[in-house]
Amino acid sequence: MEDIVSLASPVGTVRPIASIDPILGLTRVDMNRVNDMILAMAGSNVELIPEIADHLISSGGKRLRPMLTIASALLFGYEGEGHVKLAASVEFLHTATLLHDDVVDESDLRRGRKTARTIWGNQASVLVGDFLLGQAFKMMVEVGSMRALAILSNASAVIAEGEVWQLSAAKKMTTSEADYRAVIAAKTAELFAAAAEVGPVIAKSGDAAERAMRAYGMHLGMAFQLVDDVLDYGGSADDLGKNVGDDFREGKITLPVILAHAAGDESERQFWREAMEEGRNDDAALARARAIMQRHGALEATKQRAREEGRLASDALSAMPPGPARDALEAVVEFCIDRIS
Amino acid sequence: MEDIVSLASPVGTVRPIASIDPILGLTRVDMNRVNDMILAMAGSNVELIPEIADHLISSGGKRLRPMLTIASALLFGYEGEGHVKLAASVEFLHTATLLHDDVVDESDLRRGRKTARTIWGNQASVLVGDFLLGQAFKMMVEVGSMRALAILSNASAVIAEGEVWQLSAAKKMTTSEADYRAVIAAKTAELFAAAAEVGPVIAKSGDAAERAMRAYGMHLGMAFQLVDDVLDYGGSADDLGKNVGDDFREGKITLPVILAHAAGDESERQFWREAMEEGRNDDAALARARAIMQRHGALEATKQRAREEGRLASDALSAMPPGPARDALEAVVEFCIDRIS
Repeated sequence: MEDIVSLASPVGTVRPIASIDPILGLTRVDMNRVNDMILAMAGSNVELIPEIADHLISSGGKRLRPMLTIASALLFGYEGEGHVKLAASVEFLHTATLLHDDVVDESDLRRGRKTARTIWGNQASVLVGDFLLGQAFKMMVEVGSMRALAILSNASAVIAEGEVWQLSAAKKMTTSEADYRAVIAAKTAELFAAAAEVGPVIAKSGDAAERAMRAYGMHLGMAFQLVDDVLDYGGSADDLGKNVGDDFREGKITLPVILAHAAGDESERQFWREAMEEGRNDDAALARARAIMQRHGALEATKQRAREEGRLASDALSAMPPGPARDALEAVVEFCIDRIS
Repeated sequence: MEDIVSLASPVGTVRPIASIDPILGLTRVDMNRVNDMILAMAGSNVELIPEIADHLISSGGKRLRPMLTIASALLFGYEGEGHVKLAASVEFLHTATLLHDDVVDESDLRRGRKTARTIWGNQASVLVGDFLLGQAFKMMVEVGSMRALAILSNASAVIAEGEVWQLSAAKKMTTSEADYRAVIAAKTAELFAAAAEVGPVIAKSGDAAERAMRAYGMHLGMAFQLVDDVLDYGGSADDLGKNVGDDFREGKITLPVILAHAAGDESERQFWREAMEEGRNDDAALARARAIMQRHGALEATKQRAREEGRLASDALSAMPPGPARDALEAVVEFCIDRIS
């Protein structure tokens, strides 16, 4: 690989074990309740709804977002029941977005499995997504925190707005790094931010804690997306060959492409326009794309942005109460960044 | 026309003028504020969003649902600001449903105009619908009534569930009248019920008022849908030739079809199966469908159901505080029913 980096953090601190095991352990009991809640709220006499919901629920996602809500509530000593319902709401918002995204992107596969739209059609995917959104809001209402409702309803509007923006800007090589950051902040990071922010909200831990946890989630979400973008061009040896090139073949303009295009000469820029805007994206084009990225250090530069976001996420955590919950949330950041190490 | 009926109400009461003028007058000032709120909340830096929203907003709908919320709040002497935001939320929930419905039904026209999906594509329609849903919940949160939020979030889940149900049951001639009623209660009447119910909720008028206004909205919504179903087969002389046969050509199984099928002999049942399930629905088939309906009194029987729902809506209102708001809400029922007189 052209751009393997050392495990040493750029700020030189000693890093905890990069694993999601701590957060899995911390949230295990509550996440079992979240899963029960998800199954109950995805239930319906209309058979198609639990069928599609089961497909999504069994798809092997890590459930990272609801785990953030649980861990964030535990970090502030929350002892009520609301975090379970909010975590399930967060997962439903995410699942509804995936259902609609697959329709919008005309995706046939997600995590190597057929998408719901491939099996049940676009119509059912749109409507079951709407049903899950409605159920998400019902659960939030049951928690009874108007502030948590404000945060999560705002997130749902921001996510959709980001998706529309991406739709308008998609496949245009005039997309700038700032445009791109705004899109992923809305599409991806906003839900991470909201998921982390509602913890101190229901624990009534005050404005400073809410702001810090929102910042943690926002920067973690940015790092998460940037890492995904790198991995899509085979940014680490482990991931090489596994779904590499999906973004390229779909003409999705991500940061590695933007940076390579910006650093390129006219012939390279023409290559990018033809690849992203006109769909000349066969295996030979992908190989050339990766070679150009290597020449300009575009993957390494994207990794640096991801590490910087990870550092900001860790910084936001540093003033929060120490203990196993903070360690677990910190380890999530390291785990995310280590995927490109 | 085969089935013109007299203006006399089945229960023989004296009917007020059947017009929406009273509710238009009653709600004019507040509806101007609702419209301003709708324009503000449909705003976005993402150009596509206001473009599509303006298309929908200028489409000439009557805005009946938000008017119900305003009138229902005024009926109980509500003096705050919350009814305007709730009314705008109700309209956004409705608009988002229309956007998604047109994608699901692959509709090219609505009220004689091109649908958003025809102009901007299915992708934008799905995502802008999601954005409007998020904005609807944001406005509800601003009102600060957890009970209103519970009612409207439940409505949004019920509507989607009804749509999925219809998708599964669509084009099956085994659909019973009970199935059909359950679908339209969810798809159409639930939002009318929620729109009317939130008035006494924010006016803090008590459980009895909430139940009565919910019943009013539910029965009005059922009547509204049954009347639409009749008109689609040219149930009144005025409407004849105007969009007649749309449901038939789309294979939508509505109550007139279910009743005609139930009363028919084997050859007629075969006709219905071929028309609705196999798409043999040309003009000659539509003429035969209308002749069979006439023979069995299927449109007249559907009108009787609509009148009964209208009567139940009026009954629910009768114990509410008298005055111009109650008269206006009563006149909406009569207006709805008079369309099939």
